[in-house]
Amino acid sequence: MKLIDLAREISCELESGPPDLNITSAAGLDIAGPSDVSFLANPKYTPQVQVTQAGAVILTHGVDIKRSDIAILRAKDAYVAYTLALRVFFPSPPIVPCLHPAAVIDESAQVDKNVEIHANVVIGKNCIVESGVKLLPNVTIYDGVKIGRDTVIHSGVSVRENCEIGARCIIQNNSTIGSHGFGYARTSDKKWLKIPQVGRVVIEDDVEIGANSSIDCASVGESRIKRGTKIDNLVQIGHSCTIGEDALICAQTGLAGSSVIGDRVILAGQVGIAGHLKVGDDAVLTAKSATSHDVEPGKTISGIPGFDNRDWLRSTAAFRRLGDMAKKLRELQERIIKLEQK
Amino acid sequence: MKLIDLAREISCELESGPPDLNITSAAGLDIAGPSDVSFLANPKYTPQVQVTQAGAVILTHGVDIKRSDIAILRAKDAYVAYTLALRVFFPSPPIVPCLHPAAVIDESAQVDKNVEIHANVVIGKNCIVESGVKLLPNVTIYDGVKIGRDTVIHSGVSVRENCEIGARCIIQNNSTIGSHGFGYARTSDKKWLKIPQVGRVVIEDDVEIGANSSIDCASVGESRIKRGTKIDNLVQIGHSCTIGEDALICAQTGLAGSSVIGDRVILAGQVGIAGHLKVGDDAVLTAKSATSHDVEPGKTISGIPGFDNRDWLRSTAAFRRLGDMAKKLRELQERIIKLEQK
Amino acid sequence: MKLIDLAREISCELESGPPDLNITSAAGLDIAGPSDVSFLANPKYTPQVQVTQAGAVILTHGVDIKRSDIAILRAKDAYVAYTLALRVFFPSPPIVPCLHPAAVIDESAQVDKNVEIHANVVIGKNCIVESGVKLLPNVTIYDGVKIGRDTVIHSGVSVRENCEIGARCIIQNNSTIGSHGFGYARTSDKKWLKIPQVGRVVIEDDVEIGANSSIDCASVGESRIKRGTKIDNLVQIGHSCTIGEDALICAQTGLAGSSVIGDRVILAGQVGIAGHLKVGDDAVLTAKSATSHDVEPGKTISGIPGFDNRDWLRSTAAFRRLGDMAKKLRELQERIIKLEQK
Repeated sequence: MKLIDLAREISCELESGPPDLNITSAAGLDIAGPSDVSFLANPKYTPQVQVTQAGAVILTHGVDIKRSDIAILRAKDAYVAYTLALRVFFPSPPIVPCLHPAAVIDESAQVDKNVEIHANVVIGKNCIVESGVKLLPNVTIYDGVKIGRDTVIHSGVSVRENCEIGARCIIQNNSTIGSHGFGYARTSDKKWLKIPQVGRVVIEDDVEIGANSSIDCASVGESRIKRGTKIDNLVQIGHSCTIGEDALICAQTGLAGSSVIGDRVILAGQVGIAGHLKVGDDAVLTAKSATSHDVEPGKTISGIPGFDNRDWLRSTAAFRRLGDMAKKLRELQERIIKLEQK
Repeated sequence: MKLIDLAREISCELESGPPDLNITSAAGLDIAGPSDVSFLANPKYTPQVQVTQAGAVILTHGVDIKRSDIAILRAKDAYVAYTLALRVFFPSPPIVPCLHPAAVIDESAQVDKNVEIHANVVIGKNCIVESGVKLLPNVTIYDGVKIGRDTVIHSGVSVRENCEIGARCIIQNNSTIGSHGFGYARTSDKKWLKIPQVGRVVIEDDVEIGANSSIDCASVGESRIKRGTKIDNLVQIGHSCTIGEDALICAQTGLAGSSVIGDRVILAGQVGIAGHLKVGDDAVLTAKSATSHDVEPGKTISGIPGFDNRDWLRSTAAFRRLGDMAKKLRELQERIIKLEQK
Repeated sequence: MKLIDLAREISCELESGPPDLNITSAAGLDIAGPSDVSFLANPKYTPQVQVTQAGAVILTHGVDIKRSDIAILRAKDAYVAYTLALRVFFPSPPIVPCLHPAAVIDESAQVDKNVEIHANVVIGKNCIVESGVKLLPNVTIYDGVKIGRDTVIHSGVSVRENCEIGARCIIQNNSTIGSHGFGYARTSDKKWLKIPQVGRVVIEDDVEIGANSSIDCASVGESRIKRGTKIDNLVQIGHSCTIGEDALICAQTGLAGSSVIGDRVILAGQVGIAGHLKVGDDAVLTAKSATSHDVEPGKTISGIPGFDNRDWLRSTAAFRRLGDMAKKLRELQERIIKLEQK
């Protein structure tokens, strides 16, 4: 691809360098060669720009490098432009319509012709599978499920009764969508009586779900993951939760039931959210933190239980010396007693 | 169903309202309609009772509402009675005996006729599958496994060699029962030598296991989950553990090997239990806590490492101001020095 | 097996007892019988030696017991020798070459004749499966995967495009190798733009991976697990990580992307490692700790965020009384004010 064409494709301005330079791939500064485009987004990597072999480099407006021998592409956001370049050179494999003879599809299911259904896929009664869908081997789709256009579901995934998955979603391997929520009433003899879990999960468009995650159905009604949200591996979403749009939920985070997570919320790795909470839009919980209270929009909280991130940073800094503090406190008490006895 | 019949079915007393009122479902106060039964268990929702459209409401003895237009059912525990009502209106789907031609069953296995065996299920040598069992698609049962009456195993689950699962259990999708425990001896050259893991897992009656959980076999002997215990999603139970009866183990909790958990213990979300410990009956570990020591029966502990929950609440309250405490301590020291120099 | 032959097999010296004593198994001191070999490695169990029914016991050099009626085997490390004995008496089941008719193998795959391929296994294009490999039911191998000699992959595992697995590896059930890393660029309108994940995972020889774990492919290049490392259940390894040789990663631990973990590192249960870090050789992170900074070789750290384990032990001891410390601090302040007013 000519540099000028790439620039247009990824919304960059060609600032310097030959417009017809042949670019064949995109790579990091350290490994890029003369036919690769690279990028600088983090000032930490500026020294690498001085020695990179890349043929072209994407820079955010205002960033200067002392290299006249490399083509320069200007972008509003170099990292986003580089990601777009990667998507140009490494597109998702196109669909190759097929229906493997070892797939088992109920005759009441409506499956579009333009789909990939691989070996040992099982599709239940009354399912709807739209055009462009890929179901990799050993996927199990229970009865009444709807899967929207161009969605990819990887091997080992189970989608339970009546769940609905939007368009352009990706579900990585071995995840579970719509299994029963953890709901029991405790009887007077301290046994657990199962509460029927008859709701479903609705996943809106452009959602990605990682590997080995589980999203429980609602006891009644629905659990909902809204448009554009990305969920990592080994994440637990309890029954009847709602996750807003464009949220980011990192690996091994867990939500108990019935919480409502706002738009663009970021839950870092191994976070815990108790049940029946509200986490406001744009809030952030840092890694390994937890909350059993609502979180206001835009707040960043940390700790177990979580509180304001800046206060937490101060508290954790002091915590490292807490043994010394305790000792100092005892010592000051002694000195006060002496002063009092004067 | 007539109200009077429902009352009998769920062990309530019909206090007021027409005995032959037709009730067709159960729902929360906010969405219930004139043919629904609802309930009030948490005083927080009392305002909703004043405006609910429900035809009948279940109340615990001693609770009064100012509505004469709704039928009232009295229960010892309104939440339990409501759960029973849900179970009346949303029963588990009955078994539809079938043996899918794409299932692969070893000829030495003893499989009852009254079972559902779905597509791509694999059942190994010498297995016993009792009446009423449902095995959903893509379940793998290794050799020598016994599955008791009316147990349901969802798609993607693996049950390893010689494990035994009791009656009326439910195992949600993609869980693993009986994989190898994490046992190695460290050699003098600091390599890890695998300790054979030749035991099994025994799951007693009425146990439920969530999605994507893993329960390791014992190295020798058995790991055991006792009657009535409920385990959530993404839970890790290490080799040779014993979990008591009617325990509740919430999502993403992990137990290392050889621990013994008592009856009715509650481990909240993301708890960690080190190896070779004893957690006494009725103990509670709150969310995200961990212990590397035994826990006495009936204790509630919190924190990492865990200690008495009331003390932990005080400590975490103080922790939020720990930066200020450190500053104050330095300041007091200055003032003491001045006093000493007088 | 004769005792003298067992001693030779497990590199022990027969110190006392009849060389031709018939030993048929290995078991713990409490359950061993006259034809079992047992061991004493932890002084805590010394009382059990006095009453054990074992026919022979393995002791580390320098340890004495007051029993002349038991055969004694001397070892450099009794625990390692006992593990070797277990491996003698409980060997891994030998391979029984088979290719189940319900397996689906692409014709371009090169599959050795000496393999076990069970029902519903799916093997993609251009895969290489070497001699001695066992693929249990419902395993999915995507295109371009290589699986080395004598490796065992249990049911429900997915191995994604182009991954490479070494010799003598074991992958427990329902784990995912090579699914997409969690990589997105945030656009100016706060949406997440997927970064192509086109790398792979390389697993070297003698690695074991537990159940329900997920190891992400690199975005470009490779994630690598080096020789001899053992990974437990429900572990998350993010994209482009490198794990050194002979490391031990316990259950529910999570690594974000691009971290480099040294040789012989031990990450205990539920540990968290942030992205782009370096954890030096032989470092240890204790259970439930986390780090967002590099860790020096040989260090043992604890806490969230982690710091020196000995300091952490002091800090956590003081933390239990933090409520009292806060109260004491207020009280001392009062007393200082009084002193100042004198």
